[in-house]
Amino acid sequence: MKHSEGLEWAIHSCSLLAALPPGTCLPSKLLAEFFDLPEAYLAKQMQKLSQAGIVETRRGPRGGYGLARPSADITLLQMVEAIDGDAQHFRCTEIRRCGPTGVANRHYTRPCGIARSLWKAEAAWREELNKVNLADINRMGQAETPPEQIAKALKWFQEKLAGA
Amino acid sequence: MKHSEGLEWAIHSCSLLAALPPGTCLPSKLLAEFFDLPEAYLAKQMQKLSQAGIVETRRGPRGGYGLARPSADITLLQMVEAIDGDAQHFRCTEIRRCGPTGVANRHYTRPCGIARSLWKAEAAWREELNKVNLADINRMGQAETPPEQIAKALKWFQEKLAGA
Repeated sequence: MKHSEGLEWAIHSCSLLAALPPGTCLPSKLLAEFFDLPEAYLAKQMQKLSQAGIVETRRGPRGGYGLARPSADITLLQMVEAIDGDAQHFRCTEIRRCGPTGVANRHYTRPCGIARSLWKAEAAWREELNKVNLADINRMGQAETPPEQIAKALKWFQEKLAGA
Repeated sequence: MKHSEGLEWAIHSCSLLAALPPGTCLPSKLLAEFFDLPEAYLAKQMQKLSQAGIVETRRGPRGGYGLARPSADITLLQMVEAIDGDAQHFRCTEIRRCGPTGVANRHYTRPCGIARSLWKAEAAWREELNKVNLADINRMGQAETPPEQIAKALKWFQEKLAGA
């Protein structure tokens, strides 16, 4: 069981947008350059975030992707579900009803204990992801990013955005 | 993000072994017949459970797969990890260090807040799976299986195992 490869890229891109002055938009080309990622595949992740209403596209010479709402209103769960989907991890196919000893469907009144237990664990996972929002992630990022990198990034963005 | 398709089969097979008299062994052919599953693919799941030390093979005319230890000592987490592996769901590739603003590795002293938050949610999921054991699952199964099915299953196994 694992996350899509693009999840790391998507969350880091959102975190970067949250760290820049409000209203800043970045085209996926610049995001890809910043993280040294293949642009076409990163663009797919940004489209997924856009479809989920987490980022939005703004047009024009300073256009690109921007956060669609305040970072405190974007949870980690929302970003994970935007990229990986919101389907349950365990898909129960009701094999208990199959085979030579299965009985009529009306005798099975609720999901079996196996499915319930697996879904309960998934719920605990979602609950934990729901406790963290993009503002939290941004705060951790600001506190932990090496000061040298913050200085380099500020300079890099000033040059790039001035040249746009 | 989802479980392997074979997880449902593996847990139901273990649950069935836990429900039968202690020491009962079932060949994968009979397990496949009971649940109406493709034998070759179910056999693969049983091999994974065997490699994880959850079931063991016994030889002879009444041989097959049996639980390798008491059902109370087999957790749902152990079964999930036997089938899906125990790798972390989120694989952090440290993209924060990449690109034109990355700095020397020594400046990054611990995993970033994004990885830590995703791993914390995974830990909550594992913790929940670790609370449930096969004896619990068996109790739920015994209480919830339609009595008609229990009767049919007992008869079916008696005939099958007598004919072995």
